[in-house]
Amino acid sequence: MTKEANKIESVKVEYYQVPLAEVLSDAKHGDHTHFELILTRIKTSNGIEGVGYTYTGGKGGRAIYSLLNDEMKPLLIGKDASDIMAIWDELQWHFHYVGRGGLLSFAISAVDIALWDIKCKNLGLPLWKVAGGASNQVNCYAGGIDLNFDHQKLLSNIQTYLDRGFEAVKIKVGKSDYKEDVRRVEAVRELIGPDRIFMVDANYSMTKEQAIRFANAIAHCDIKWFEEPTIPDDYLGYADIADAIDIPLAMGENLHTIHEFTYAISQSKLGFLQPDASNIGGITGFLMVAQLAYANNIPVCSHGMHELHVSLLASQPHSGYLEVHSFPIDEYTTTPLKIINGKAVAPDIPGTGVVFDDALLTPHLKMSS
Amino acid sequence: MTKEANKIESVKVEYYQVPLAEVLSDAKHGDHTHFELILTRIKTSNGIEGVGYTYTGGKGGRAIYSLLNDEMKPLLIGKDASDIMAIWDELQWHFHYVGRGGLLSFAISAVDIALWDIKCKNLGLPLWKVAGGASNQVNCYAGGIDLNFDHQKLLSNIQTYLDRGFEAVKIKVGKSDYKEDVRRVEAVRELIGPDRIFMVDANYSMTKEQAIRFANAIAHCDIKWFEEPTIPDDYLGYADIADAIDIPLAMGENLHTIHEFTYAISQSKLGFLQPDASNIGGITGFLMVAQLAYANNIPVCSHGMHELHVSLLASQPHSGYLEVHSFPIDEYTTTPLKIINGKAVAPDIPGTGVVFDDALLTPHLKMSS
Repeated sequence: MTKEANKIESVKVEYYQVPLAEVLSDAKHGDHTHFELILTRIKTSNGIEGVGYTYTGGKGGRAIYSLLNDEMKPLLIGKDASDIMAIWDELQWHFHYVGRGGLLSFAISAVDIALWDIKCKNLGLPLWKVAGGASNQVNCYAGGIDLNFDHQKLLSNIQTYLDRGFEAVKIKVGKSDYKEDVRRVEAVRELIGPDRIFMVDANYSMTKEQAIRFANAIAHCDIKWFEEPTIPDDYLGYADIADAIDIPLAMGENLHTIHEFTYAISQSKLGFLQPDASNIGGITGFLMVAQLAYANNIPVCSHGMHELHVSLLASQPHSGYLEVHSFPIDEYTTTPLKIINGKAVAPDIPGTGVVFDDALLTPHLKMSS
Repeated sequence: MTKEANKIESVKVEYYQVPLAEVLSDAKHGDHTHFELILTRIKTSNGIEGVGYTYTGGKGGRAIYSLLNDEMKPLLIGKDASDIMAIWDELQWHFHYVGRGGLLSFAISAVDIALWDIKCKNLGLPLWKVAGGASNQVNCYAGGIDLNFDHQKLLSNIQTYLDRGFEAVKIKVGKSDYKEDVRRVEAVRELIGPDRIFMVDANYSMTKEQAIRFANAIAHCDIKWFEEPTIPDDYLGYADIADAIDIPLAMGENLHTIHEFTYAISQSKLGFLQPDASNIGGITGFLMVAQLAYANNIPVCSHGMHELHVSLLASQPHSGYLEVHSFPIDEYTTTPLKIINGKAVAPDIPGTGVVFDDALLTPHLKMSS
């Protein structure tokens, strides 16, 4: 006998603007003063509430709110919350004309993560077990958004990461004079010593020529990966860069459909994939990319929302490094990220493990349904 | 001496839901009961008002309204409306994290078309001259959205196109039994006679195998093009289909960045390109695609918003066929599309030539700023 259906009875949407403690900058998005958080709360007939969410660097969140509240909510009411892949596929096609990635993928992510939260709660299991179960821990690194920090502040910021127990760090590059980037990279490598893991991220600010020149100038610094050297749309350009340098390439945060990951895997000669469940179609989309990575012998990593990705990456046998992002979403939950012996530890409670702390979030609420 | 700057002083956004006279269906988007129209009215310091717009098949328009009203308006105020490419590029990068096509391209389109309207008005010239000037007329076809019409209604609908003077028609295909599609195609070819132009459009509803089987079954019907046989993301799959059939392939309405057109041109063996200025980044985006088409020896056609595309296609020396779309946006303007001797004629007034009739549109206004 099958269980009674998990009919979706209500969908609530909330839009928050959460200020950052200080202005953070990268080479292409400029200054970040806050991030946007868009939550979906889905309640089912058997009394379970699933919480899903997505985020942005400060722009476009109200359009995502509209997609969720004006368009998706009426479609979702009455569906069986268990039918996750069917709902994911229907949302992709129903909104296809205004979709194929972009903002639609953010909205689908917020729905999908809520449905996975319900699934895990129905199973009474934490996400890291439901998504794969390989481990409850994963390698991680601190991802700085620090291009606007001067030399001294860059280093003191890296020191705070080391003090928190990180064994791997990433900095932004993309200064107007690449020699300044080289000096910053050399200084960080000197600070962290020869054995810690070190990545750089250009946020697609360079031409191919600039990327190759810069990568070859930091080859002596033992760089784990060079992230987004140039625009993500130039799949074949990534391969040209990979052929000309000795540092593996990484990308993924700007690829918002499974098709875009397919092009990148087949054309771009990447060393690491970095999907983000908040913009690749939630946990369903993230795990599709993880399976492509598995099939193609590439470690799967992550971008952003570490409080969720810790469980997803820990669950996978071929996980690389979890980005602990500079947008501290986890500080607005009841279980901020734990790092033990340099590894991030997945929450062990039924559900996604991301339980927002209303007392902390409510002051930042701007719209809700 | 250069002229005084066209500073942008105000940006107004309007959101309309316009009912269709009857329900229209295709193979993938299902039933259309109305279309959405999102207008931008940009006023400059020299007293010119430019009107731009985009549209959807009924979904996502409120998110576009949010992007325009909440996010882009504050960025635009104070800029020089003459700097069209700079504004286009800034909007692409400023919203890149939630962009790279999708809904963002629709919003950029509505801004860009308004800026071109201002440019043409400042020049005192119609769009067909400013955009290229090859001609003020272009071949056109009636694009039916008729998959839900029964056999008899399909034919009587085609007859109304012939009665209006069309020398080319397109029908939707993608019935669950492809043999029914074949019978419909044969019946339409019989009705229109051997000399008129005839296209079919599957709205990416078929697998490669189905598309090849169907195309070969209608090869005797002299089909000008087979539009969107399968999902637009499968660029290489289009080439597989092209290799296996004798009908040229067409696509473009679902490609929302210049990069996506680049992939399609280099990989998909297309016979015709069909950009839509409402979702490829306006007139700037449309003309970039037209130039790629020119460089690659492919006729440029169009999808939707014929009241604007008539001027753009007429202006180009390598234009193919203008789609006269089943969403009659032109009927809400002061200059509905004119067809003379089977050709569509571009408006000859300064500006884009698209002047909305407020008396007709206002009853459908749902939101405005």
